[in-house]
Amino acid sequence: MRIGIIGLGRMGMHMCFRLVKEKHEIVVFNRSPEKIKEAVKQGAIGSASLADFAKKLGKTKIVWLMVPAGDPVDEMITGLLPSLNKGDIIIDGGNSNYQDSARRAEFLKLKGVSYLDCGTSGGLGGEKTGYCLMVGGEKAAYTKLVPIFKALSAKEGYFYTGPSGSGHYVKMIHNGIEYALLQSYAEGFELLTTGPYKIDLPGVAELWNHGSVIRSWLLELGADALKKDPTLQGIEDFVGGGSTGTWTVEESLRTGTPSPMIGLALALRFRTRQKSSFAGKMVSALRNGFGGHETVKKQK
Amino acid sequence: MRIGIIGLGRMGMHMCFRLVKEKHEIVVFNRSPEKIKEAVKQGAIGSASLADFAKKLGKTKIVWLMVPAGDPVDEMITGLLPSLNKGDIIIDGGNSNYQDSARRAEFLKLKGVSYLDCGTSGGLGGEKTGYCLMVGGEKAAYTKLVPIFKALSAKEGYFYTGPSGSGHYVKMIHNGIEYALLQSYAEGFELLTTGPYKIDLPGVAELWNHGSVIRSWLLELGADALKKDPTLQGIEDFVGGGSTGTWTVEESLRTGTPSPMIGLALALRFRTRQKSSFAGKMVSALRNGFGGHETVKKQK
Repeated sequence: MRIGIIGLGRMGMHMCFRLVKEKHEIVVFNRSPEKIKEAVKQGAIGSASLADFAKKLGKTKIVWLMVPAGDPVDEMITGLLPSLNKGDIIIDGGNSNYQDSARRAEFLKLKGVSYLDCGTSGGLGGEKTGYCLMVGGEKAAYTKLVPIFKALSAKEGYFYTGPSGSGHYVKMIHNGIEYALLQSYAEGFELLTTGPYKIDLPGVAELWNHGSVIRSWLLELGADALKKDPTLQGIEDFVGGGSTGTWTVEESLRTGTPSPMIGLALALRFRTRQKSSFAGKMVSALRNGFGGHETVKKQK
Repeated sequence: MRIGIIGLGRMGMHMCFRLVKEKHEIVVFNRSPEKIKEAVKQGAIGSASLADFAKKLGKTKIVWLMVPAGDPVDEMITGLLPSLNKGDIIIDGGNSNYQDSARRAEFLKLKGVSYLDCGTSGGLGGEKTGYCLMVGGEKAAYTKLVPIFKALSAKEGYFYTGPSGSGHYVKMIHNGIEYALLQSYAEGFELLTTGPYKIDLPGVAELWNHGSVIRSWLLELGADALKKDPTLQGIEDFVGGGSTGTWTVEESLRTGTPSPMIGLALALRFRTRQKSSFAGKMVSALRNGFGGHETVKKQK
């Protein structure tokens, strides 16, 4: 199958390699031309511009977007629009907000273009093991692309989730769960360091992956990280990201569904970005106010 | 190796079967004799009393305790005491409090008896896949029992954690993590039911085990449960257990280590046991007090 990929970041590039290996014809476009060269070396068909990209896709176009969520997706859709015809399919494989995806699908439907929203999980390990794909949108377009989903995914790792937006909705919730799982494991490991025993952290992390109730892929990554740096001395207590976690909490607020663990995990992630919290200072000041409890004075 | 097992509950019985299969000689004792008969049918050596059990173990005794945490462990130790000699080994494979284990080890050391505390994870699935064993206590006693640990555990599923108590300490933290993981997955699944899409829960749970970042053994159990009952209509919103989670939170308080996710997971478990919370009523009463907001009057 001939299919175009726009966006050759780490994930997009890996997906391109996977599809080329499975004998699909992959036309690629990317803002920086170096990435296009890299993909061409691996067997992809390069393109010099968005117009050239569209031309090389032929009459019926299938385009996989793998660009950052937000404006970049809209920009690419706008750029492609003049070349698009009835029956073409665009897939957004990024971490877009599900409401944006539903809106884009509705807009493109007016032109007879199908828009699939595909939540893509698996991280960098996905190149080897295959990704986990959660796909929403028109069922007919989904069915047409099953060979592509099959080539990209782990065994049984693709699924039709329902109408437009549902793929990114399911991926958003997946990520919300992920935030809470990360924090849950992390607290346990911290408690292993503060107890009365000198625990071999890499040893225990590895052990727990052999038959324990809490074994998981994340715990395998944890064992790898602790083997490389058992005290994590080379890493700052600072966690990036946050968009899908924030959307999950917004969704819980919108629907009045309690999700205190996911909300707390997000807040604790934000806390890592504060060197000093105003709230901590405020509590200290208040305790001083009502009970004369000492505050720790700032060094000048 | 000849070894005794006291306690033929689900876990103890499974462990007995696994050891018999591996050609070890297993002497068993249990309060209810039916369980002893069941074990004998599978090739274990039964015993009529604790004294008979001790006699059948021969001169150097190795006893695996698989009884509920707390008094039952002390009772069995007291019962065995007259038969124990220097060089004997007792292993507590249950979910004992690590401080109890350290105390018992110290006491038995006076008699020259080695006491190993073995945290055992793997649940009912452990009979097939093998358990995950976290073992604390005297290193020499641990080394002597490696063939037993090997027979019971998953591949590479046993580990020496350090001095007495450390095995149960590591298991306690394992369980604390487990509480938080369970709640994290659960919140995500609830959000799948309250969003704008009708999501196929068993389908998504199964999908996520194929290549996603959050794949795990717990999620496999989740997929199994949802396949049997996609709306969980046959299950009450009531979660039992709680001892190891409580101990984990107590440990975090004792050492001043923040573990808000584990603490919250425990609180949310307790919340499932309340049909109606006093706190909810109190908030409603207070809102009524300051703003005249309506309370929902109890039906008589």
